[in-house]
Parts: sequence; structure tokens; C-alpha cells
Amino acid sequence: MADPTLPVSAELRRTVADLHRELTRYGLVIWTAGNISARVPGADLMVIKPSGVSYDELGPEAMVVTDLHGELVEGELAPSSDTAAHAYVYRHMPEVGGVVHTHSPYATAWSARREPIPCVLTMIADEFGGDIPVGPFALIGDDSIGRGIVETLRGSRSPAVLMANHGPFTVGTDARAAVKAAVMLEDVARTVHFAHQLGRPEAIDPESVDRLHARYQNVYGQ
Amino acid sequence: MADPTLPVSAELRRTVADLHRELTRYGLVIWTAGNISARVPGADLMVIKPSGVSYDELGPEAMVVTDLHGELVEGELAPSSDTAAHAYVYRHMPEVGGVVHTHSPYATAWSARREPIPCVLTMIADEFGGDIPVGPFALIGDDSIGRGIVETLRGSRSPAVLMANHGPFTVGTDARAAVKAAVMLEDVARTVHFAHQLGRPEAIDPESVDRLHARYQNVYGQ
Amino acid sequence: MADPTLPVSAELRRTVADLHRELTRYGLVIWTAGNISARVPGADLMVIKPSGVSYDELGPEAMVVTDLHGELVEGELAPSSDTAAHAYVYRHMPEVGGVVHTHSPYATAWSARREPIPCVLTMIADEFGGDIPVGPFALIGDDSIGRGIVETLRGSRSPAVLMANHGPFTVGTDARAAVKAAVMLEDVARTVHFAHQLGRPEAIDPESVDRLHARYQNVYGQ
Amino acid sequence: MADPTLPVSAELRRTVADLHRELTRYGLVIWTAGNISARVPGADLMVIKPSGVSYDELGPEAMVVTDLHGELVEGELAPSSDTAAHAYVYRHMPEVGGVVHTHSPYATAWSARREPIPCVLTMIADEFGGDIPVGPFALIGDDSIGRGIVETLRGSRSPAVLMANHGPFTVGTDARAAVKAAVMLEDVARTVHFAHQLGRPEAIDPESVDRLHARYQNVYGQ
Repeated sequence: MADPTLPVSAELRRTVADLHRELTRYGLVIWTAGNISARVPGADLMVIKPSGVSYDELGPEAMVVTDLHGELVEGELAPSSDTAAHAYVYRHMPEVGGVVHTHSPYATAWSARREPIPCVLTMIADEFGGDIPVGPFALIGDDSIGRGIVETLRGSRSPAVLMANHGPFTVGTDARAAVKAAVMLEDVARTVHFAHQLGRPEAIDPESVDRLHARYQNVYGQ
Repeated sequence: MADPTLPVSAELRRTVADLHRELTRYGLVIWTAGNISARVPGADLMVIKPSGVSYDELGPEAMVVTDLHGELVEGELAPSSDTAAHAYVYRHMPEVGGVVHTHSPYATAWSARREPIPCVLTMIADEFGGDIPVGPFALIGDDSIGRGIVETLRGSRSPAVLMANHGPFTVGTDARAAVKAAVMLEDVARTVHFAHQLGRPEAIDPESVDRLHARYQNVYGQ
Repeated sequence: MADPTLPVSAELRRTVADLHRELTRYGLVIWTAGNISARVPGADLMVIKPSGVSYDELGPEAMVVTDLHGELVEGELAPSSDTAAHAYVYRHMPEVGGVVHTHSPYATAWSARREPIPCVLTMIADEFGGDIPVGPFALIGDDSIGRGIVETLRGSRSPAVLMANHGPFTVGTDARAAVKAAVMLEDVARTVHFAHQLGRPEAIDPESVDRLHARYQNVYGQ
Repeated sequence: MADPTLPVSAELRRTVADLHRELTRYGLVIWTAGNISARVPGADLMVIKPSGVSYDELGPEAMVVTDLHGELVEGELAPSSDTAAHAYVYRHMPEVGGVVHTHSPYATAWSARREPIPCVLTMIADEFGGDIPVGPFALIGDDSIGRGIVETLRGSRSPAVLMANHGPFTVGTDARAAVKAAVMLEDVARTVHFAHQLGRPEAIDPESVDRLHARYQNVYGQ
């Protein structure tokens, strides 16, 4: 059993704080919208962005720590209003170490139409392993959003889900991987949007999708 | 009665000057276009951007102070050419403490078509409480623009109005809230534009809109 | 008669060099494309960008001076490949003190379709005084481009012309005014593009266009 | 015969490392995607980006050197996963000194539709000498991508090829020229995309294309 009294390392707070800069760098968030969390290794805790705080002021000390039911454990500020959704994901997907939520514009446009992003690019096969799925319409305030994320991701190889009329959530083995998925999601959402504006690209055949996905997951990088 | 001889605090001038940087950061304005004003608490005065001055040169000392009929009270420079519209809003909407005008491209495209932005995203329900309304076509030079803003906003929960063939005005309890509305307006104008380019998203049902709006206005942030 | 042996002030070189930064700031140019020139007051000379030099290296000392037939008078580098077009404009439009050429993407898209930008925004009435006109298709290498610019601008109040399948040229009483027109042109080209993607905005009536144009030209700014 | 034991100059490593900044400056790449290589003059070697390394960490010391079959010769890191494609191009196109691969969004959208970019802009005639061609769909892992690039470029004056459902590759006499082609490719892919969204521009006649291309290749620049 994890011990909720374990201290959260300064390094993890810094990592989560710093990763928020990738959201602004790639234009995935505006004002105070969007949030990143990381599971605390060895504890039933997570580090998450506080609610409604400007990206210019998001240092490590502003990050808050909650348990996996979203109850505040450490920190001066109220946690993100999306904390319940992050917590639900960590409780139900033990392989997930990081969660990201944005309203990045192209991915959110697909979300608004409740239309999956089709696997028409090698980059989608690489990272998402097929079409990027749509989750249900769910209101904030209880476990509806978290449940919608988990149920949708369980039926897919994709680390990203497009929540209907809302926006994307992405997951990863750690916070950095979830941020990478959020950045790549917006990139492919945009490129396929452009492609569809002037025609309809052919989907990549399933066997090629499998080969691309297997290679990228196992060979790419250092 | 407010005393028009009260000095305007250096802090309010700085706040208004600094907020203009958010307009350039989010690409809401070009060159010298766009302007922010703030009501001076306890006085029938407002602080506003001068006319035709570059954003690089907008320090606190460049800001001008006028009464609520747009007559210059303090400052070396001529006030914004939109001063009459800002002043009209302050005279007729006592709850408003800040006004912002931009020609942000996506919001202005909806303005040009005289088409409200439909409430198809949770973020629109949160901040705008429903469809974002269109105001009349009005020429600069008298109270037409101000009257169009006030009449449109009175029939809506939205802090933003799309003035026909012109561009958006937003209001807030203070200048920061009006700037936030301008930033969120352009974001949702863009996302719904993208969504409409490849289909038509379903509107969120009115009861969900009400619940989202109530929660966001009362629970979000610190 | 102007004396071509008059020295060109360091200040004018610096002004022209610095204005190129506005082209990159607003995304109007890539790599080494685009160019700005200024007429030298009191002389049949102009200051212009050298050909094929990176924007990072465009200091005052890199600027070149030519006569109004494009012959090099001062400078180490070959003048812009568009020098002949700038020179033609100065020879035939004595009221022009600055010329700018870019391939800014939205304006160039209208140029590619040989379609004028319709006056559907108050900002277009303000700065351009009506529809923004299209010039002929003309090859580089002789006076064709310059002649096309001058003939088109003479039939219009617009300081901008969309050269067919090529891109925009703008003029002004000085280089700064021509840059301002280039920045505003791309902004309205983009906004009207967005507006047209989802419908057709109504044009502003000619009387209102006249009133807006007259006011903006005479009242706006300091 | 080139001697694979020759040292690779620090200058070439720095040049290739620095050029990657142009890819981020113009928004051609995200995260760790995209790569640039340069042939080592006088040796059967190339300098290339390592696989999956952040653009913030791409100093000269991170660059790796491989032979022209992609075998690592110098460096601590694994070479780019696209190394085999770069190597194939150098083996079969001796005139090529630099290769660039990106997933730049507009060019990749044309790639996804397998649609050539038509020569409707003088800038396309200048740099690409005609329509920008589409290459075959090819999987990573053997010589398929390299062969597709070479076969497509041999039938064209274009330094760019749009690999189906994947993205663009560009070549040049050196790495800087290949980067320039990648930057110009995305620019024209975007502008023609915009032009096609609201109509169909006329193609430039072949004789004018030839004249523009000849002039730009021989006269432009210093």
C-alpha cells in the first residue's frame, strides 16, 4: 500500500510546473485554461495545477498535491477544477502516470463535431495506433468525465480521447509522455483538418498501421 | 457623487497599460488597433489607451483619463477614437468596470457575417452562458456604437458582443475580466469556426448550459 | 532638380532597416522574401533592402541606395530583385514616399485567385477606402510590374494592390505608412477569408464607406 | 574514394545543429519530429540529427555522423529514424548536399490527399520550377522511402517531394538550401491551400514558369 504521508519530491513539482510551458509554447491553452497532473510514484497521490492561476505564475511552489479522490493534501491553492477527472483516471488505469487536459483548437473542433480523427497519416499510426476516438458528453461536477475518458481509452490504443463538445484529454506513462501526446494530437488534428478542407485522404491500411505503431513504440528515440 | 478632481492611481494606469500586452500576446490586435479602458473606482472617470500609439510605447504614462462623456481630464495624448463607445457603456452599465475592443480575426469574421457564435462548447457555456450575440451596424462619431453594445448585452448573459461588420467589444467587472473575455471570445470564435468548416456540431442543451455557467461563475479559480 | 550626390542620412537607412522587423513580427515574410524601400527626401534616390539577405542580418549598413531607375549609387550589396518595380512607382507617383512588397499568405491567396478583397469591414473602409484591387499578371525583368501597380492604384483610394498570382504591393507617404498598409492588408485579407469560408458578409454601403474613410484619414491618431 | 576515417569539421556539425532552429522558427516541426542532414564534403559520410532528442538540446555535440548506409561512425546517440532515407538520397543523387524532412502541416495535408501543389504562384515557379510532386506511400524500415523520394525528384525540377500520407522531404546543394526549400514549401502549400478554399486560381503558363525559374536560379541573391 502506498503511504499518503510520503513527501512529494521537489523534482516532481518542478517537472509538472515546467511541462505547462509546453502547452503555451505550442498554443494548446489560453489564459488559465488547461492542466497537467502526474501520479506520485509509490503513493496514492498526484501533483496537479491549481485552479485559475496564470501560466506566468506557475512555479513548482504553486503546484498542489491531492489524493486520488481529489482531496487536497499539500499546497496553498485550490486544485484544478478538473481534478476529479484526473483522479478517476489514476484510480482506474494503474499504467497511467500522467494526464493532460487542454482545449487546443483543432482537437476541440473535432470534439465539438463528435468526429474521430481518422488514421490518414503515418504520424497518427505511430503515436495513436489508429483513429483517435470520441468520448461522451459529460458535465463537470462528478465522475462523469473521468468515466467517459477511461471507458473510451480502454477500447483503443490511443493515448488521447476527444470529449464531446469539450476538448481532449491525453494520458501517458508519465506527465511528459501525456504532454507529448497532447502536442502531437493537436498537430495531427490540424493537419487532417487541412486535408479534409479540400478533399478526403485515403486511410492507411490496418496492417501498415500496426507495423508503424509497433516500430514507433519500440524503436524510436534513444 | 463622484469627484472628477480625484487623482487616478498610478496602479490603475499601470494595470491598464500592462493588460494591452495580453492583446498582442494572443494576437487579438495589430499595429495600433484595439483598446482597453477601466472605470476609475469612486469617480465618473475612465483610464483609456491613447489613439494611434504603438503597443511598444504603451507605458502607464501614455494612458489618458477622460470623464464618462469622453472629455480629456488628464494626459498629453488624444484618447482612443473609440472613447465615446467606452464612455457610453460606463454611463449605462454601472456594473461594468472594464471595456475592451479588438478586431480579433475569428470573432470579426463572425461579426462580418452578422452571425452569433452558437453555444456548442462547454467553454462557451462557462464564460458566455449561451450564444454570443451580434450587435447592429453602427458608424463611429456619435453614440451609435455604445448604444448598440448596451442594447445587445442587456438581452444576454454574454460579456461579449459582435458588432456587425466591425468587431467585438467585451465587458467585465474590471479591465482584467474584460480582457479575459476578449481572449476567450477569440479562442471559441476560432474553434467553432474550425468545427463549422467540416460539419455542424450539436448545440449543448439549455439545462446543461445553465449548470455549466452557474458552476464556472461561482466555483472556478481561487 | 534633386542632386544624386547628396548623402543619404544614417537615420533613413536605420528606419528602413528597422521597419523590416515589422514584416517578420506580423508573419508577412519568410526567409529573405519581401522588401521595403523609402524615397530619399530631396533627391531622386531610394533606400532599399539588398537581394537575398537574411532578416537577421538587415542592419542599416546592409541597406543599399539606388537612383529611381534602380542603378546602384551606394552600398556593397546588389539591391532587391524587385528594385525596378519600386523605382517605377517613385517615378510615376510623386506623392509616394515608401513602397512595400510581401508574399503575405492571405493577401497572396486573393492575388492567386485574382479576386479583389470586398469592403465588408469598417477597417477596410478606414484604411483602404473601398475594395482592395487586383493588378495584372506581370513578369519580373522589365517595367511590367511597376506599370501594373501604378495603373491599378490610380483607379482606387487603396494604398494596396494584389498583383495577380504573385502577391501584394503597398504604398504610403513614407515607408512606415506603407508598412502599416501591408500589415493591415494581411489582417483584413485574413478576416474576410475567414468570413467567406462560412458564408458571404454584406458589403458596407458606399456612403458609410466614404464617411469612415474620411474620418480615419483625418481624425485618427495623434 | 572518400576516406570514412576523415574527421568531420566542427563547423559542419554546428551548421546542421543551427539550421534546426529554422524548422522551429517557421513552425515546420513539433516536439522531436523532423530532421536535417548534410553530406560531408570529400567523404561518404553525413551529419544528421539524433533520434527523439528535443530541439532545445540540439547543440553541435549532439549531432551524429553515419556512413551513406546509415551506419553510425561518430557520436553518442542513435541517429534519426529517417537516416536510411537520407542515406539513400545521398547514394543516388550525387548533386545533393543536404536533405530535410518535416511534417509541416500544410505540406503534409497535400501529402495526405496525394495531391500535387499546382504552380499558381510566381514563388512556386521561382523555387520549384512547376507543380510540386507527390511520392508513393512507403513504410519506414527499408529503402522504400528513399527510393520513392529519388524516383519522384528525378522526374521534376522541384527540390521538394510530398510523400503520400506522410509528409515532405526537400533536398539542396547543401543543408541550408534544403532548409530554404522546406520553408518555402510550407509557405506556398499554405497560400495555395488558402486560395483553393475559396475558388481555383489559374495556373501560370509554362513559358512564364520557365522564365521565372531560370531568372530566380541564376540572378536572385548576392
